[in-house]
Amino acid sequence: MPDGSEPAALGELARKLCEGERRALARAITLVESTRSDHQSQARALLDRILPRTGRAARVGISGVPGVGKSTFIDVFGTHLVESKRRVAVLAIDPSSSLSGGSILGDKTRMPRLTALEQAFVRPSPSQGSLGGVARRTREALLLCEAAGYDVILIETVGVGQSEFAVAGMVDVFLLLMLAGAGDELQGIKRGILELADVVAITKADGANLPRAESARAEYKAALRLLRGVDSAPDVVTVSATEQRGIDTVWDSILQHRQRLEASGELTHKRARQQKAWLHDLVEDSLKERFFAQPAVKTTLPSIERAVERGEITPTEGARRLLEL
Amino acid sequence: MPDGSEPAALGELARKLCEGERRALARAITLVESTRSDHQSQARALLDRILPRTGRAARVGISGVPGVGKSTFIDVFGTHLVESKRRVAVLAIDPSSSLSGGSILGDKTRMPRLTALEQAFVRPSPSQGSLGGVARRTREALLLCEAAGYDVILIETVGVGQSEFAVAGMVDVFLLLMLAGAGDELQGIKRGILELADVVAITKADGANLPRAESARAEYKAALRLLRGVDSAPDVVTVSATEQRGIDTVWDSILQHRQRLEASGELTHKRARQQKAWLHDLVEDSLKERFFAQPAVKTTLPSIERAVERGEITPTEGARRLLEL
Repeated sequence: MPDGSEPAALGELARKLCEGERRALARAITLVESTRSDHQSQARALLDRILPRTGRAARVGISGVPGVGKSTFIDVFGTHLVESKRRVAVLAIDPSSSLSGGSILGDKTRMPRLTALEQAFVRPSPSQGSLGGVARRTREALLLCEAAGYDVILIETVGVGQSEFAVAGMVDVFLLLMLAGAGDELQGIKRGILELADVVAITKADGANLPRAESARAEYKAALRLLRGVDSAPDVVTVSATEQRGIDTVWDSILQHRQRLEASGELTHKRARQQKAWLHDLVEDSLKERFFAQPAVKTTLPSIERAVERGEITPTEGARRLLEL
Repeated sequence: MPDGSEPAALGELARKLCEGERRALARAITLVESTRSDHQSQARALLDRILPRTGRAARVGISGVPGVGKSTFIDVFGTHLVESKRRVAVLAIDPSSSLSGGSILGDKTRMPRLTALEQAFVRPSPSQGSLGGVARRTREALLLCEAAGYDVILIETVGVGQSEFAVAGMVDVFLLLMLAGAGDELQGIKRGILELADVVAITKADGANLPRAESARAEYKAALRLLRGVDSAPDVVTVSATEQRGIDTVWDSILQHRQRLEASGELTHKRARQQKAWLHDLVEDSLKERFFAQPAVKTTLPSIERAVERGEITPTEGARRLLEL
């Protein structure tokens, strides 16, 4: 794109995006996901333009281990929101998808009903790069979706890694999906993730499984009240995507949590904190990237790490040697 | 200290330290705590010398909110360990002590019995600097205590901040002290800390409070099993420091957890991971420190942070401006 036409083309893209044109939104997200430096500067210019139109959506993180029925839930949940006259965007964070060769989360056939709706926008996970990079692109895609007029942004993650902490840092409300069961399913959940949850939903509360789900709900409710205190314990609800039962209860819990945050002024503070933390993450990631990309550091790091792991040198000495390079 | 005599003096200090001389240990810790650059290079040389003598102690983190009876517990617990022929060192991480003006944790009168024992070593918290700096000095003090022949190193922290995560990164077993109660006391505990616990002890299980403590034990046990899974749920025990009841049970739980780690080979891996993470923390802290200490960055940072918090510029744009400086 020649320099002269750039502002005009960007202006056009921004305009169409803010009018809610889905193709413009898709192109804009492709732009923020691009690693080409000219694309990145265009993406920054685009984000600057649309920034005043952001901030109005309900930002919701959704997590749960594989097998919990996340795709089916989001498909039904998103469809329910669209039926209640809301525009819904689904984004995904899944740094593992680049390792497993294909983006599981990117498969649109996972959410057939939602994908078919005009008022919904489902975007596959950016499938390249580190968590930091994926998180940055997802945050920026979230802003683009807001500018395009989506009322609810669902950010999906897989429940087993660090990405939940990244998601918790960019949403208003964090929903954790769990299965009823003897706790064994939970072993797949990384320590600390449960404490991020603002709302917990026990999935597959249907058929013969319903009594088990209901008693799990009561147990989790009691356990979380004990461990987190009555005031800050998350709501625990049951839901069935196949029987479409409890979908509105989940949404009510999310909305109530968000309204409490809003009424107390905490939502504004939370978002300001998130923005500031994001700034610092970006600076720190970039400092690390630059440092560890230096040829001398790259060559020496493995041997220093080994010596430190084996206890042959102290980490302090190892750090001194690396920083001297 | 002139250059020529430095190795000799250091050699003498290292020798006395490894013989278990308490004054040598105290002087060595003062050296690693010093911010003078000549002291720091001496400290590095000392640590290199004693490194082969480290790694043999049981490293135990102890945390709990103010009011839980931490000092009394450590006093009685440490004394019990000394009576069972163990040498015990107590270190503290309390970055808040520099803010509150005086180091509460540094007050040796908090642990009168233990401090009086020849086989125990109680060291006040280093009372200056950031958590990163305090954590580095505590890790190094831990190595010095090991070289001095201490069998058990207790690292104490206050239970309300980030320092628990730092402590969990330097110990084999993390003990969390809790009060029996309706959960209100827990609100002081930062989210995520409970999930660090390998062993939970309900304190003040004595007198009229005993039944309440026992029922709290059962409740916490059930809640933690549900939330963390049966296999990885921590032991939950009750203890009374004043009636000296359950002290050995706490120690058995800690020991059993550590023996399980050792038998499976996980202890070696855990320590190697901790060492490597420590190396990276040191490098990253140092990169950040250097960057944010630059006058241009210092001057510009507050206005960029404000603009980002208010949503006037994106964090990506803010980061770009900072990194350009």
